Parts: sequence; C-alpha cells; structure tokens
Amino acid sequence: MKRKINVALIGPKFMGKAHSNAIRSAAHFFELDCEPVMKTLCGVSEGLEATAKLYGWQKTERDWHKVVSDPEIDCVAICTPGNLHKVMAVETAKNGKHVICEKPLANTLEEAETMLSAVQESGVINFVNFNYRRVPAVVQAKKLIEEGRLGDIVHYRAIYQQDWAAYVTGNYVWRFDNEISGGGAIADMGSHVIDLGRFLVGEYDEAVCTHKTVIPYKINPTSGEKKSVTSDDAANFMATFKNGVSGVFQTSRVSVGKKNWLSFEVNGTKGSVVFNLERMNELEVYLSDSDEDVSGFRNVIVTQPCHNYIKNWWPTGHIIGWEHTFVHQYYEFFTAITSGVQTSPSFADGVETQRVIECLLKSDKTRQWVKI
Amino acid sequence: MKRKINVALIGPKFMGKAHSNAIRSAAHFFELDCEPVMKTLCGVSEGLEATAKLYGWQKTERDWHKVVSDPEIDCVAICTPGNLHKVMAVETAKNGKHVICEKPLANTLEEAETMLSAVQESGVINFVNFNYRRVPAVVQAKKLIEEGRLGDIVHYRAIYQQDWAAYVTGNYVWRFDNEISGGGAIADMGSHVIDLGRFLVGEYDEAVCTHKTVIPYKINPTSGEKKSVTSDDAANFMATFKNGVSGVFQTSRVSVGKKNWLSFEVNGTKGSVVFNLERMNELEVYLSDSDEDVSGFRNVIVTQPCHNYIKNWWPTGHIIGWEHTFVHQYYEFFTAITSGVQTSPSFADGVETQRVIECLLKSDKTRQWVKI
Amino acid sequence: MKRKINVALIGPKFMGKAHSNAIRSAAHFFELDCEPVMKTLCGVSEGLEATAKLYGWQKTERDWHKVVSDPEIDCVAICTPGNLHKVMAVETAKNGKHVICEKPLANTLEEAETMLSAVQESGVINFVNFNYRRVPAVVQAKKLIEEGRLGDIVHYRAIYQQDWAAYVTGNYVWRFDNEISGGGAIADMGSHVIDLGRFLVGEYDEAVCTHKTVIPYKINPTSGEKKSVTSDDAANFMATFKNGVSGVFQTSRVSVGKKNWLSFEVNGTKGSVVFNLERMNELEVYLSDSDEDVSGFRNVIVTQPCHNYIKNWWPTGHIIGWEHTFVHQYYEFFTAITSGVQTSPSFADGVETQRVIECLLKSDKTRQWVKI
Amino acid sequence: MKRKINVALIGPKFMGKAHSNAIRSAAHFFELDCEPVMKTLCGVSEGLEATAKLYGWQKTERDWHKVVSDPEIDCVAICTPGNLHKVMAVETAKNGKHVICEKPLANTLEEAETMLSAVQESGVINFVNFNYRRVPAVVQAKKLIEEGRLGDIVHYRAIYQQDWAAYVTGNYVWRFDNEISGGGAIADMGSHVIDLGRFLVGEYDEAVCTHKTVIPYKINPTSGEKKSVTSDDAANFMATFKNGVSGVFQTSRVSVGKKNWLSFEVNGTKGSVVFNLERMNELEVYLSDSDEDVSGFRNVIVTQPCHNYIKNWWPTGHIIGWEHTFVHQYYEFFTAITSGVQTSPSFADGVETQRVIECLLKSDKTRQWVKI
Repeated sequence: MKRKINVALIGPKFMGKAHSNAIRSAAHFFELDCEPVMKTLCGVSEGLEATAKLYGWQKTERDWHKVVSDPEIDCVAICTPGNLHKVMAVETAKNGKHVICEKPLANTLEEAETMLSAVQESGVINFVNFNYRRVPAVVQAKKLIEEGRLGDIVHYRAIYQQDWAAYVTGNYVWRFDNEISGGGAIADMGSHVIDLGRFLVGEYDEAVCTHKTVIPYKINPTSGEKKSVTSDDAANFMATFKNGVSGVFQTSRVSVGKKNWLSFEVNGTKGSVVFNLERMNELEVYLSDSDEDVSGFRNVIVTQPCHNYIKNWWPTGHIIGWEHTFVHQYYEFFTAITSGVQTSPSFADGVETQRVIECLLKSDKTRQWVKI
Repeated sequence: MKRKINVALIGPKFMGKAHSNAIRSAAHFFELDCEPVMKTLCGVSEGLEATAKLYGWQKTERDWHKVVSDPEIDCVAICTPGNLHKVMAVETAKNGKHVICEKPLANTLEEAETMLSAVQESGVINFVNFNYRRVPAVVQAKKLIEEGRLGDIVHYRAIYQQDWAAYVTGNYVWRFDNEISGGGAIADMGSHVIDLGRFLVGEYDEAVCTHKTVIPYKINPTSGEKKSVTSDDAANFMATFKNGVSGVFQTSRVSVGKKNWLSFEVNGTKGSVVFNLERMNELEVYLSDSDEDVSGFRNVIVTQPCHNYIKNWWPTGHIIGWEHTFVHQYYEFFTAITSGVQTSPSFADGVETQRVIECLLKSDKTRQWVKI
Repeated sequence: MKRKINVALIGPKFMGKAHSNAIRSAAHFFELDCEPVMKTLCGVSEGLEATAKLYGWQKTERDWHKVVSDPEIDCVAICTPGNLHKVMAVETAKNGKHVICEKPLANTLEEAETMLSAVQESGVINFVNFNYRRVPAVVQAKKLIEEGRLGDIVHYRAIYQQDWAAYVTGNYVWRFDNEISGGGAIADMGSHVIDLGRFLVGEYDEAVCTHKTVIPYKINPTSGEKKSVTSDDAANFMATFKNGVSGVFQTSRVSVGKKNWLSFEVNGTKGSVVFNLERMNELEVYLSDSDEDVSGFRNVIVTQPCHNYIKNWWPTGHIIGWEHTFVHQYYEFFTAITSGVQTSPSFADGVETQRVIECLLKSDKTRQWVKI
Repeated sequence: MKRKINVALIGPKFMGKAHSNAIRSAAHFFELDCEPVMKTLCGVSEGLEATAKLYGWQKTERDWHKVVSDPEIDCVAICTPGNLHKVMAVETAKNGKHVICEKPLANTLEEAETMLSAVQESGVINFVNFNYRRVPAVVQAKKLIEEGRLGDIVHYRAIYQQDWAAYVTGNYVWRFDNEISGGGAIADMGSHVIDLGRFLVGEYDEAVCTHKTVIPYKINPTSGEKKSVTSDDAANFMATFKNGVSGVFQTSRVSVGKKNWLSFEVNGTKGSVVFNLERMNELEVYLSDSDEDVSGFRNVIVTQPCHNYIKNWWPTGHIIGWEHTFVHQYYEFFTAITSGVQTSPSFADGVETQRVIECLLKSDKTRQWVKI
C-alpha cells in the first residue's frame, strides 16, 4: 500500500485549475511511490465549494494559515498572485510541509531569498513551477545540448508574445497591478524565457533592458470605468551568459495576433534548435553533420517513445497539450517527495531568475548594463 | 445530488486508456447532469488489476458477459478489436445499457446493421467513437460550412498517413490480422476520414477504390518469426457525394515519416479550410471576401472562448491534446444519457460509414465504381 | 566564336513571355556552346511589334508558315494554344528545325504521335516544356529516388490546385474552350503532375478518373455576356505504375484560395519527400536512418551549390523564381542542339503523358479502370 | 526613340552579377522612358572580359577613374567592397554622373556624409541599394502600415541570420576584414534590417548594442593557413524610435542552419505582419477586425496583380526570386533618372543607416545607450 500524500492548494483560479488537473492525473499516467490525495482547496472567492467539487478536492478552507498548518497536509501548492508567495511559502516551510509555488517565485529578489532560506532551513522539497521545462520538446532540446550534438552554444534568442492585454477596452485583472503581480512582461512572461535560458544555456552574466506599459489604462466595457495599468506590457532585453553565449529577448502581452507565442532558438557550432509553444509537440532541429544535399531544419514531432515523458501517454503522433506540462511537473514533485531527492526547478532556481528580473528592472532605470 | 452513472469498459489497451482518462476527466471540466462512476474494467490480459488501479477503475472482471449484464452497470464502453464489437454491443443493448463503441463500428456492414437494430429496439443511447468530430478545429470547419461561409462545397480531399506499419521488422499486432481487425487502411484509418466526409460534406453517392498490403509479413525482431499481414496497408479511393461534391482519399500506414497525419481540405465556392491532426489546434481558413491585397489562408489557432469546448479548458493559445477529443465525446455521451436525446455520431452513423467501407472493398474487387 | 542559333517563337502571350525571358537569359547564366539569337517573334495580336521589342526579339512575323520555313531560323518555340501544336510542330520538323513545344504536347494522343513521328523522321532535337522537371528541388527529389535513398517507392500523391477559374464572373479565356485548349484540369494542369509521376516514379499501368466542369459558364464582367465553359475544371484520378507504386491525384482550377499549389509526395520504404510549387525552393525530406530522437521531415532549402543548376545563380538561401525553370529548360535545349544528344523531356515524353490523358478521359466516360 | 542611358558597373563579383542581370532585364519587364545600355564593366580580377561577355557588357576597363570620368557614361553602379565606396561615389558625382551604390553606403558615417554632400552638390540621382525595400511583400507591409490598417505601431523585431561564416575551416573572403568590409553582422547584415526599420517604422532615437567575432580566425582548407577575422560575426541590439516604437534586433552570420533568414515582425494596435526573406513571396498578416472565430495570421502569397511590381511579372502564384528585387531597384533608378525626381532609398537614407551603425559600434564600446 502506497504512502498517501495529502495535498492542499491555495488559489483556485486559472493556475489552480491546471494544478488540480495535474495532481488528479499524475498517478494515472506515471508510476508514483505515493498516492496523492486532493485534500484541501483554499481560496477566498465565492463558489469555492463548487470549484472544489469540480476540480476534485475533498474540502475547502478560506484561511490559508489554517491550511499550511494543518497537520493532515503534507504539501502545499501556491497558485496565488505573487504578492502572497513569500508569506505563504515561508509559513508552509516552517510547518515542515513540501511546497510547489507558481512562478515567478516572488515579487522581489529579497522575498525570493527569504523563501529559499525558509525551505532550506526546514529541509522541505521545494519547486517553482517553471512548467515549460517539462515540455518533451524542450527536454529534447536540452538533451541535444548536453550531449554536445549542437556543439558549443553561441546564441540564445527567446520571444514570448501574447495579445490579451493589447486592447484598451477590457476587464481589469490583477496582472495589471504591479503591486500584486510583481510585473508583467518581465516578471510574468519573461521569467519563463529567463528560466529556459538557465535551463538550456547556463548562468547569466550581464544584462540590459528596456520595458514599458503600452496601454496605460483599461476601460471596463460595461461600467466604463478607467483604471491604470501599473505593470509592464512589453520588454526587450539582451544578456550575456557566463559561458560567453549572447542572448536577446522580447516579451510582450500587446503583440496583436500572437496568442501564446513562447519561442526560442539556440544556435551552436554544430547545430540549432527552434521551439514554439503554440506547436509545443514539435522541435525544429538542424544538425550540420547531415549530407549536404539534404541538410535542413527537421520538424521533429516529439511524440515518440524515446522522448521524455511520452511513453506514459499515447502512441507516436498523438499530441499532448499545455496542461500535460503540469502533470509532468507533479510527477517530478511527488517523486522528489518520496525519494527525498530535491530536483529542479527548485526555489534556488526561482531565486536565480528573480535575480535576473531584479537586474533587468534596474537596468531599465539606470539605462546601463547590469552585472547579474 | 446528481444521479450516478456506473460505467464499465471492455478492452483496457491503448483505446481503453484513452476512454478511461476521458471518463475520469469529463466531470472535472464539463458540467454534467450526472456523476460518472468508473465501476468495472473488463479485459483478459495479465495485470488487469494493476491497469484498473492505474486508470482509476473500482473493480475488474474477465468475463464480459457478466459485465454487460451486471445490474449495477448503466453504460458500457467497447474498446476491443472489431471482431468483438457486434456480440458485445448487441448483448449490452439487450440488457438495456447505453453503449459507446470504438470505430469502425463493426467488421462488416451486416454486423453493424445488427448492432443498430439492437440499440434501436432497446432504445439505449448509442455512440460510435469517431472522436475527430470532437476536435474544436473540426467543429469550427463544420460551423463555417453550415453557416454558408465557404459557399457551396465543391471538393473534399482527405489523407490519413501513418508509418508504424512501414517496416518488415516489427512486432505483430492484432491490427495486421484482417479477421480480427476488420481491415487496416480502409477500415481502421479510412473510417475516420469517411466519417469526417459525412460530417462535413454530406452523404456519399458512389465510390471507386484500390487497396493493398504493402508489407506482406512481419518478422518478429527477437524470435525471427515471420507472420503474414492480412489487412490492407494502403488504399486510394475516390467518391462522389449526393450533393455533387467530389472526393479523393488516401490512407496508408506505410507512409514513412508521417506519424499521425490525418489531413483534410474542403473547397467551397467562397472559401476553403485545411486541417491536419498533427496540428489539431489549428485550422487553415481562406475566405474570398477578404480585401484582395491581404487574402490568404489564415492560421486560426482554435483555442479561443468562442470555439467549441474551449472555454471549459484553458485560456487562448494554451493548446489541448489528442486525448481531449475523448473527453468531449464523453461529455456528449453523458449528456445524451441524462437528457435522453440521442446525438451524433451514433450507431446509425457507424452503419453509414460501414456501408461505404463495404462498397470500397467491393470496388477493389470488381474494379468498378460502386453505388453507395 | 560560338555558333549562332537563330530562334523563333510563336505565341507571344504569358508563355511566350516566359520563353522569351529564358532564351534571353540562358547564355548569361549558363555556359552554352552556342549563342542564341532572338530572331523572330510570331503572333497575330495587335501590338506584336511592341511586344517583340519589350521581349527582345529582332523582328516580327504574323504568318507562322513563313517562320517555320525561314532558312535563317534554327529552332522554333511553340507557345500557342494546344490546337495549333500539331500543325506547327510537324511543319517545323519537316523544315529540319529543332523544336520546343509547350505542354501538353497536343490536344489528342493521335496528334502527339504524329508530332513524334515527324521529329523522329527529320531527326531534329525536340522538347516538350514540362518545366517543373527543372525545379532544383524536383531534381533533388529525383536524385534521392535514383540513389535509392528513399528505398523502394510505394506511394505517389500529386495535387495541383489553382483558383483563377473559380468564379462565375470573369473574363473568358481560350483555356475554357475545350476545342482550343484540349482540356483543363486534366490536360493543362494534370499533364504536369502526370509527367512528374513518370519522371520520379516510372511508367503508368492503369488509371481511373472522374472529372467535371464546376462553373459551367462565365459572365463577362463588363458586357454581361454569358459563355459556356467546355473544358474540365476539376479532376480526381488514381493510377498504378508498372513497378507497383500506387498513385492518387487531384487537379482543380476552382479550389478557392489555392494560387499555384502543385504539390507532390513520394513515399518509399526508407524515406519520403514532399514538394510544393508555391515554395519551390524547398523540399521536405524524411530519411528513416536518422537518429530516432531527431527524426523528422527536413525543410531543405534547395539553394546550395550542390543542388542542380544552383551554382549558376546566387549564393545559398537566395531563392530563385518560377521563371528560372524555363531558363534551365533552354539551357538543356540549347545543349541538346549543340551536342546533338536528345535529352528529356522530349516529344516521346509528351506522347506518354498524352497517352495517360487519353486514358483518363476514356475512364471518365466508361467509369472503368483503363489500361495505359 | 528612347533616350539611351549608358551604364558602367564597378565590381563584377556576386553583387555585380545581380546588378548586371537587373540592368539587362529591367527594360524587358518594366516600361522605362530610356534605353539602358550596358557599356562598361570595371574590375581588377582575371577573366574580366569573359565575365563581361557572360553578363552582357560591351567593354571592360580596369581603371575605375577612367570609367567614372568617361564622357560616354551616364550612370555608375558601385558594387565593390565598402572601403572603395566613398572615393568612387564622390568622383562619380563630381563627374556629374548618376550613381547607385551597394549597401552599406560607406565604412564610416563620415564617409557616407561626404558622399551625400558630393551628390547633393552635383545634383545627380543617387541610390543606395537597400534592395529589400523592393520585395513586393515588404512593400505590402509598408502599405498596410501607411494606410493605418495595423493601427499605431508598437513593436519592431528584426532578425538576420546566415551560417556561411560559422565554420573555422573555410576560405577567407574580404568580408572577414573589417578594414575592407566596414563590418559584418552590424554593417553588412544589420544595415538591411536597420534600413527596413526606417522604411517601415520611422526614425531611430536611441540604441544599445553588443557584438562580437565568434570565429576568430579561418583556416584555409587547402593551405592550412590561419587568418584573423576582424569583422563582427554577431550582434544583438535594441533601439527606440522617435515615435515611441520599441525595436529589438539580432544579426549573425554564424547561426548554423539559417541560410538567408532575414525576418521581421511589426506589431501595431490593430494588426501585425511577419516577413521572412527565405519565403519572400509571402507575408503573414494579422488584422484584429476579422470575425473572432476565424482570426489568425493570413499567409498572403504576395503575387497578385494588386501587389506592387507583380503585374509586370507572372500570373498569381508564380513566384519571383531574390534577384527580382534588383530589377525593381533599377526600374526605380532609371525612372528617377529620366524623370529627374530623386526617390528612396537615396544616399540620404544611406547616411541615416550609417548613423545608426556608428552609434551601435559606439554603444558596444561604451556599454551605454547612445542617442542617434
């Protein structure tokens, strides 16, 4: 009989829904050494009970302090806006519970470091949900890099474009408030491509950045109310990595027509890879050792048994979706809990990305390259 | 308190896994008027209990007769090879249980018609799992056609190519045995594109077909054993529809490099659509009423709230996977059960596709166009 | 001092323009053993002199009999509608002049055979302008097949879709008149993909076809005049090749949104290629001997020095256009003239494609498979 | 009888070949008010006479001073490496001859400004060959922007990647020598995307840049000789435009697998466009005023009569190649000469791009944002 792991989740919105699905599904596709139990859903909105039922949680609680101190709970998923991450994660850790936290890890580097100290002191397993590390195509890209099949890495380019914030008329959401969200184009979107840079290429050295809020306020379509947008809509930045790789980045939530275009390209001395989240089951791969007359970027449909995580899903060519990255993340999280072996992306990874974000914000102010 | 619907599933392999996931997930994403309960998994292979646990079934049973006559069971999913569909479906219907059956509905038209009679007599809800009708992009294609936005339909072309059977060396699976599977390129693969033709364009009128087994036997990689392939590897066929549309089809499981390439194109007098299952979240749409200087096929990422089924999943641009079509199918199946309103694709649809298959096989023999 | 080759061209419209450019350009990009001289442009339309000047011809002539018997002329390009090909080519050959003729070679098989006899008797170099054999990407496809890199060929699929004839309102052109053009979807468009099948795969064995005129008449946008379309708008056909390969074809000039979509796919036991004329500098290539984790269709930009014809143009990645296929054709034609070595595609190739066309037309009437 | 324009060209290599073809072809496709005559080809390499004959020039000359002072010559095309542009253009202008010069206009801003003064003083027509302004798809992008169909422009991203310099083993060419070429990733490649930014978006305001030489030397494959590369292989830069648009750029000639990947994306408040030179006949266009359920990027095949330059070439869907941009450029150049109306891109445009280049180089040294 497998050990039961009682899970609690705080923040039942979009992210909470994706986490819930992953917690519910992980054991049905991956072999776990535990049995996750969806104990408590915590939130403050109306309809929490109905949501809990829909998502498959056994009970609800409105006071998160009770949740993270509940002796019955083994681990906590934090899916709230960024301004609550620190207090929740620290208290979770102090109660000796494992923790997985949405990205970016915190709203400031200082908060992130406090969180890291807390989990280190208590020794709990800690994950930050950079879920795109769990896309099989991204793992395949990393494999090619690690095995030297792309040679020495030379360039990293990453673009993350969406358009949901591109219009003046629209509902105001917490992501527009910098105090709550901790940022937009850099923190919310940029954190993903910064983390992928660390995952694929290595540690950052220096960076320079410029960002701005393109649509300065939103007009509520029904009330006509006008409310300021204080988080950044768009950012460009450049970075160098410690290993000499040069990086260039663009993130924007006001790129009309782009829905969820997280794309990166890595060029090495022997090959290149290109990825795009909107076609996340594919990886474009160029290898310079091909016969010259058939050299070209290969469209690899990353759905074969040899590709990471895939044999647990469906036969070749039967694609997986966005939510599957969360299932993979929880498979890794639960495996870390039962094995006691902390893996990545941990709070330490969250801190490193936060360090880059902090430098980017500083660079925008000082108009200087900033050492990371 | 919602009414409980006790489900049984026969055939726990690839399809059984996909059905299980859908049954488990439907109520977590869609509002149902019932609560599906995963009662019994039925199969004959070793490890059935472990599989049942993995997939989330409460109990197991090796004798399907017991399952379909179990008073506790409300509906049965048949995921076995085609040669068992008829007996199982008929007995299920006679026991007054609702039934959803994998495609093609049967191994012969006669069997299919028997099945249809059985469900009609007992009045149970009946579905055949042409799951690609549940792809949001396919539903969008149908919407454009039904709303007249493509004008009068002129051409339908459908291609279904895979390559898993393209190599002599490989494991022998039941799909290679015509007696068990009821066919390969036409029955297994063709049934999908034939059904999509009915779904999108209308009823077939005449057809001509040629098919063959390209790789006549398989050599087991470990034992060296050689075993004949009796089902067809590849087929080409042409058809006309009753409304005058002309159709052309190619199906093959020996198209090296093609993983799950189910692609169709519909041309009308005012526009066209192109779909490809490997990029199932996208639909290419051409509308001739665009400004001339920007006329072109649009790559529609079919992941917006206005697209069918999507608002129950994730925000725009967060793609869904192959398995989601099964979740949609079960949402429709359970809805039919609770509402008592039979919807499509029903056994009647399965019969019509079987009728086309029968004519195609006949045409290959007679080398004639055959009236459908 | 190189030998001068005096060229005459009959038919100064769209095709005449493309031929003129090729004749004018060939010697500027390819090493020829002769110096082509643009002697005479022959046509019957007003403005012939202006056209001749624009295209670079030295003189004009309205009576084609004079042109093909002019002692000064060494070779003749026939760019007229199909109903004139036979008389012109036969008389050209009888006058001992080399001849290059637009495709399809003639309006009937009998005409084509007469033409072949004529050139064989006189011993002149003869070409039929299946110019898509001269696309570097198509030559690369053939190279892969000939070198066995795709294994044994299994399938050939070819689609040729345009949409210029898809609307009722539009100018009437000679291509709509079956007597003049010799046909539409099969003869005009189909001849290309039939010839590519012979070029890439081999000789045809049997075929079955259905075709139709979708838009039965045209209404002149200014006069309101209504005129019948007697040539076919769309055709579907299937064929088998003598080597056992199966083929499936669709051609249509009423496929709304498709501009010049000549696409083919060849599947072999070891690999596949896909080509599309709208992206004629690219060839998709799949080779099954790649490492499994990076197997996929490669997008080969066929613009490298190792690719046929390319080193005479521009550096890698600098694409060529549609008209370049004509330049390549004339390079081959002039080379054949100076070397005395007849190469392909000759009138003999034109006859073979005409034979297939004749059988397709017959099959449409008899509703039978027809031996070719 | 049209006025004859006697042309001379200096620099008979790759660029000289493309210019020669354009000069030879312009009058055959476009209506000119003059008759260009290919008078003199000037160069210093062996085989100049054979090259002149191949390209269609009447005579040759090894001393460029004689060419630019030849009374017979009306205009001069300068296709040499950048270090010779200034002296040649200035002397050409002083001799009252019209001039078209390859890009970048010069090796320094000072040189460029001297050149601009010279042509302004003499009043000759002057062009800098930013030929990508002449791609019909690029012109279409500009049209959409100018007509306001993309709304207010927000972002500009431009990437130019090649891989011909990515390998240590290879022939040394003058482009590797910074003294001769004036630069690599920024000057040679970057000048194109900088100019396109000015063409499409507006004047630059500030920029920050980092560049480097990735492959520091070349080893001659036959001699084994090792020679330093002094020009930059790769650059990243960011810029702001005076109208508030933010820009991000990457240029590299060491991006393995990328052949001639000049790609840009422009996002406005109402729409976006994406262009890629490897598919230069296409433009991706997104317009937010489409019906929501069919909104998506349209793949516009920019080959319709309504598209700029196209009606002079071929019917819809018959693509043009890279060299055609030069024909368009010469059509504009000759038209400017005969009309006396100076158009763009002129030396003034060349100076502006040079100003940006100079600032980028400065920024790389100072590690600061630089005002342009």
